[in-house]
Amino acid sequence: MKFTVVAFMLFVSTFAMAQGVKISSPNNQIILEAGLQNGLATYTVAFNGKPIVVPSSLTVGIKGIMAINDKYTITSIDSSATDETWEQVWGENKYVRNNYKQLTLHCQSIAAKPITWNIIFKIYNEGVAFKYQWPAQTNLQHFIISTEVSQINLNHNYLAFWLPGDFDSNEYPITTCKLSEVNPTKVGLKNEIHARTLAGDNIVQTPLMLKGTNGIYVNLHEAALVNYPAMNLKLNPKTYAFTSVLVPDAVGNAAYLTTPCTSPWRTINIANKATNILASRMILNLNDPNKIKDPSFIKPQKFIGLWWEMHVGKSSWDYAGTQDASNIKNNEALQPSGKHGATTANTKKYIDFAAKHGLSGVLVEGWNVGWEDWFGKWKENVFDFITPYPDFDVAALSSYAKSKGVHLIMHHETSGSVTNYERYMDTAYRFMKLYNYPAVKTGYVGKIIPRGEHHDGQWMVNHFVRVAQKTADYKIMLDAHEPVRPTGLHRTYPNWMASEAARANEFNAWSEGNLPSHETILPFTRLMGGPMDYQPGIFKMKLNYADATKKEQMHTTLAKQLALFVTIYSPLQMVSDLPEHYEEKLDAFQFIKDVAVDWDTTVYLNAEPGEFVTIARKAKASPNWFVGAITNESARIAAIPLQYLDANKTYTATVYMDAPNADCYTNMELYQIKKVIVNAKSILNVALAKGGGCAISIVPSAGKVGKAGVIKL
Amino acid sequence: MKFTVVAFMLFVSTFAMAQGVKISSPNNQIILEAGLQNGLATYTVAFNGKPIVVPSSLTVGIKGIMAINDKYTITSIDSSATDETWEQVWGENKYVRNNYKQLTLHCQSIAAKPITWNIIFKIYNEGVAFKYQWPAQTNLQHFIISTEVSQINLNHNYLAFWLPGDFDSNEYPITTCKLSEVNPTKVGLKNEIHARTLAGDNIVQTPLMLKGTNGIYVNLHEAALVNYPAMNLKLNPKTYAFTSVLVPDAVGNAAYLTTPCTSPWRTINIANKATNILASRMILNLNDPNKIKDPSFIKPQKFIGLWWEMHVGKSSWDYAGTQDASNIKNNEALQPSGKHGATTANTKKYIDFAAKHGLSGVLVEGWNVGWEDWFGKWKENVFDFITPYPDFDVAALSSYAKSKGVHLIMHHETSGSVTNYERYMDTAYRFMKLYNYPAVKTGYVGKIIPRGEHHDGQWMVNHFVRVAQKTADYKIMLDAHEPVRPTGLHRTYPNWMASEAARANEFNAWSEGNLPSHETILPFTRLMGGPMDYQPGIFKMKLNYADATKKEQMHTTLAKQLALFVTIYSPLQMVSDLPEHYEEKLDAFQFIKDVAVDWDTTVYLNAEPGEFVTIARKAKASPNWFVGAITNESARIAAIPLQYLDANKTYTATVYMDAPNADCYTNMELYQIKKVIVNAKSILNVALAKGGGCAISIVPSAGKVGKAGVIKL
Repeated sequence: MKFTVVAFMLFVSTFAMAQGVKISSPNNQIILEAGLQNGLATYTVAFNGKPIVVPSSLTVGIKGIMAINDKYTITSIDSSATDETWEQVWGENKYVRNNYKQLTLHCQSIAAKPITWNIIFKIYNEGVAFKYQWPAQTNLQHFIISTEVSQINLNHNYLAFWLPGDFDSNEYPITTCKLSEVNPTKVGLKNEIHARTLAGDNIVQTPLMLKGTNGIYVNLHEAALVNYPAMNLKLNPKTYAFTSVLVPDAVGNAAYLTTPCTSPWRTINIANKATNILASRMILNLNDPNKIKDPSFIKPQKFIGLWWEMHVGKSSWDYAGTQDASNIKNNEALQPSGKHGATTANTKKYIDFAAKHGLSGVLVEGWNVGWEDWFGKWKENVFDFITPYPDFDVAALSSYAKSKGVHLIMHHETSGSVTNYERYMDTAYRFMKLYNYPAVKTGYVGKIIPRGEHHDGQWMVNHFVRVAQKTADYKIMLDAHEPVRPTGLHRTYPNWMASEAARANEFNAWSEGNLPSHETILPFTRLMGGPMDYQPGIFKMKLNYADATKKEQMHTTLAKQLALFVTIYSPLQMVSDLPEHYEEKLDAFQFIKDVAVDWDTTVYLNAEPGEFVTIARKAKASPNWFVGAITNESARIAAIPLQYLDANKTYTATVYMDAPNADCYTNMELYQIKKVIVNAKSILNVALAKGGGCAISIVPSAGKVGKAGVIKL
Repeated sequence: MKFTVVAFMLFVSTFAMAQGVKISSPNNQIILEAGLQNGLATYTVAFNGKPIVVPSSLTVGIKGIMAINDKYTITSIDSSATDETWEQVWGENKYVRNNYKQLTLHCQSIAAKPITWNIIFKIYNEGVAFKYQWPAQTNLQHFIISTEVSQINLNHNYLAFWLPGDFDSNEYPITTCKLSEVNPTKVGLKNEIHARTLAGDNIVQTPLMLKGTNGIYVNLHEAALVNYPAMNLKLNPKTYAFTSVLVPDAVGNAAYLTTPCTSPWRTINIANKATNILASRMILNLNDPNKIKDPSFIKPQKFIGLWWEMHVGKSSWDYAGTQDASNIKNNEALQPSGKHGATTANTKKYIDFAAKHGLSGVLVEGWNVGWEDWFGKWKENVFDFITPYPDFDVAALSSYAKSKGVHLIMHHETSGSVTNYERYMDTAYRFMKLYNYPAVKTGYVGKIIPRGEHHDGQWMVNHFVRVAQKTADYKIMLDAHEPVRPTGLHRTYPNWMASEAARANEFNAWSEGNLPSHETILPFTRLMGGPMDYQPGIFKMKLNYADATKKEQMHTTLAKQLALFVTIYSPLQMVSDLPEHYEEKLDAFQFIKDVAVDWDTTVYLNAEPGEFVTIARKAKASPNWFVGAITNESARIAAIPLQYLDANKTYTATVYMDAPNADCYTNMELYQIKKVIVNAKSILNVALAKGGGCAISIVPSAGKVGKAGVIKL
């Protein structure tokens, strides 16, 4: 639903060289100035009078046509303003306001056969974005981008929350340090990321969260990454200037384009409160509107996964039990290991649990032939996506799930062999429709085939969009693992409901695990691009119940695992632990059963990256609210105001919180549940343990508020 | 049908290092000696007592496991013999005898974790072949071949008929010179091959034909090229030693293999008569037997093509008329040029002609959207293979063809964008079945996508086989253009009936054209690997009838174009000129109508590469014989014995020959047709013009032979 569109031309001028133009955000807090300097388009950004981006130039190298040192001219500049509101198919807010001013620099090369392009800026109250646009023209049709040199010169030694720039992986732990100390090639890494290609010295990836000693928060990312490689950022550690670094293809080129076309948006979120970074919908707004005509098949939901038991070693993905074919003799059939997880009987157990507790779906991994020899060999013909192992009766399970009112969720691990997956996609999706699978989780663990291509290059970016489009054609919902980092494309393809694309909960099962601060940073980094399949809800914190030698454990409290259902948004939300672990703690599990996955409204109550995050959300078409609060390794009191509740109602707040002795190192499972009557004037003070959190459901009730104001819990 | 199989173990010995073993061909003319020399398996080959291959060593570099300089051991040697006869689905002979001795060297690396492999030699009366075989083993499962160093040291300065070694193209003109003068990087080339990547100095490609001053003919090639890159040969121009050079992939590796596996066969045909090289079925025998259970859908046939008129400029492939989208305005529909060839009306004209003259099929190129912007841009999304241009009514034409008793033949030009084609293959083949297309001509003009891969690398080799397999699944016949050079795989996939894979007749339409010697060399080079879609049968020799400025012309006589239907074998044979040109010369066209495309027997009467070729073939399940004789730029008398005819019958020979004043430069279309009664004792002496030829149909008749012996024509 589009509420208002106000678009008007502010000015069109013949642009005098060396003369800059200024344009402000709708609320006038941000001022962009742009013009020609030394033969290149150059811009600055100020926020409340403070310089945020100091003079930064913009150019793109095009093979055989334009070198990055070539000077060019600006032939004219024009501008406009837009203020519109649109409705999401699903999301953190039902409605999104898109309010910005736009400035377009019309550029032209200095050459015998000049080419033209536009640099378009959008100025929001929340920040600035820009992109390159190449119109159809005689002198530029098919072309190859060799390099993009977009500068973002920040001129301040921000505290940075960063990942090493990498062409293949975003599964690194997050490092926090001053920009002057950033050193991506020195990040100590265990051999736990299966395909990674460091971009080089001083190169970091986006979303990059920055916190200044000047009270300013800056977030750098990109929006609408389509038909273009992902961008990394090269830092000058002395001037704090960033320059774009595009992911190369197999022969070292960046992008193959055909006019008319554009680059993605380069986004600069700016705020003086961390919560305003979280509340920004700028990246979402910069994406194209929903292209799916009938989105009625898209149903936000929770699902349980036959999955965690493989991660902790209780069962195996592969029927043969080794994942590297070492128990297969030449020309013999697979030798069952007896540890296979995705059996018909075990799947029925998960279906029964989902049906009993109102979960919509059951993800089953390791169901198909190929897992016995899938891993790390750069092997092209791995899976065919339609052949189950002999102990997985897909037809019977599909019927059984249906009879129980739930559905199976498909898993397509590609092992990075994307040429192979593309050959089978149509066949695989038809198989899914035949057996009533409405959603697929894809996976890209391993080096990419076509060999020489990277997860984050143009070819793979196009693949991920192609999967979103093709699944949409088949009315299938999508959750992509190991994809390029999201850039808001879930606006355009709302069936692309979630991605992993970062270090998720699974790393706790077989690596050193995620620090207690990890989940307090993710909303400022990974989540800026879209919903994340973080796999929350682990209840059994020591992970040695299947393998007594196993030393790994979770580094959160149980209450924090519940809070993640609110703080880390996904409309296709995994309920990640084993049924038996939930059955042991059904009182706590009640929150997972109750919590929504689609929202009318979200309120970002308080947050500091690396420290704490508290978010309240109102369930879609429901009076119920859900709150999540999490902390890093420090215990603290979360003060949770409830002023967003209906002032005319009273509510019962059920608070799932850390027990007094809980912490994230040794007493992770200690929790308590308190019920209290509240209203909009109440403030809940909840004690969060070290690495702890709390989850609150707030439901209208007939009770009476005990005392006004602060309620200590 | 398998007639006889005789396989017995000759000996199994514990092999003493430095001790060689000898094994001879079934007729004892060829002697192979093999053993360990300087830590490498080394072999020699002698023919009738003459050394042909002097000591040559064999090794394969495996990444991280074995360097090419690593010495190894031979742990044992065994041998066997086989003599069997099998029946072809179609071919130059109904039955093929497979008679060889086999020697296997069991090799082992010298390492802490040794690997084992076998080097298998097969010794035929016609030559020697060898391959590497890696059995399943603990120390070698998935592995990467970096280099193969197979030596073939010939030690004689043969006259060579060669193409430059190239990773992408086999469409070069053939150069003839002594090995000492071979210089592939100096071959003068117009810009007429759209994707080529020279392999480097002194590197040539196979099939390589060699003619010695010692009366010996040698042909080097490979057989059963599956899951491996094609091989080029690096020549030492002083010692005449060749070493294998594999086509690299996008990251510089050669092959990704999983045990158990093998390399293709490296083949060395040896003969003291050129015709024995042509008669060899060794390459075919080295391929796996037919894998298509029900080959009844495979029907050898002739077809006319709506194709040559585009080559000569009478019409265009693309509806819009430019092939580079330059007349498309932004967001507008295509602007029809009025020159589009594949219109409904024009296709009906070809269907009518085919029906009238008993041709089975009509190939239509340029029927589908994409041609308006398909060329040379390394563009990935080009064709979808199912969307016709608005002036091509595929449903109506399919019905019309059916009503006339003929069928359409599909054209899938990929422009080298193979990732795109692989996405659409299933859909495209279903479309073909829907519209009754029983055969497809594929095309790969342009640089390959996945970018960095080559036409002849392992990835594309696998693609070509995948297309053969998938078309077989859909019961579709295949004719591949711009594929890797054939290696006898039509035995295994007899639906893969033809390939272009060399400089064909089409080059005469828009390049300097093919020399008169060209077609006398092709049977010794390109045809060694399998049938060729050479596009014979051009009747209108000056090609300026559609464009008066056009200077190109054919460099053969018309009679030679007829002879090519016999001398260049294809069971899916194109009748290449325009219907109106055949209508003008229906007497000559009668040979094309009559000539068979599948044969009981073939007799190679006489041949010298670069000079002349005369071949007689007996039509399958018919008493009729067809003879083709061609010459190079020299006029000569072809003496054609007929001793292969049934001694108890007389025949009418219809001789389509050059007229007295014909030649291949100015009077190409002058021909004469003579009829003469012959029997098995007759010898026809036919005058061939410069660049000329003759085609003869020999049909049993009631007449009487005029005079015994030589008949001068």
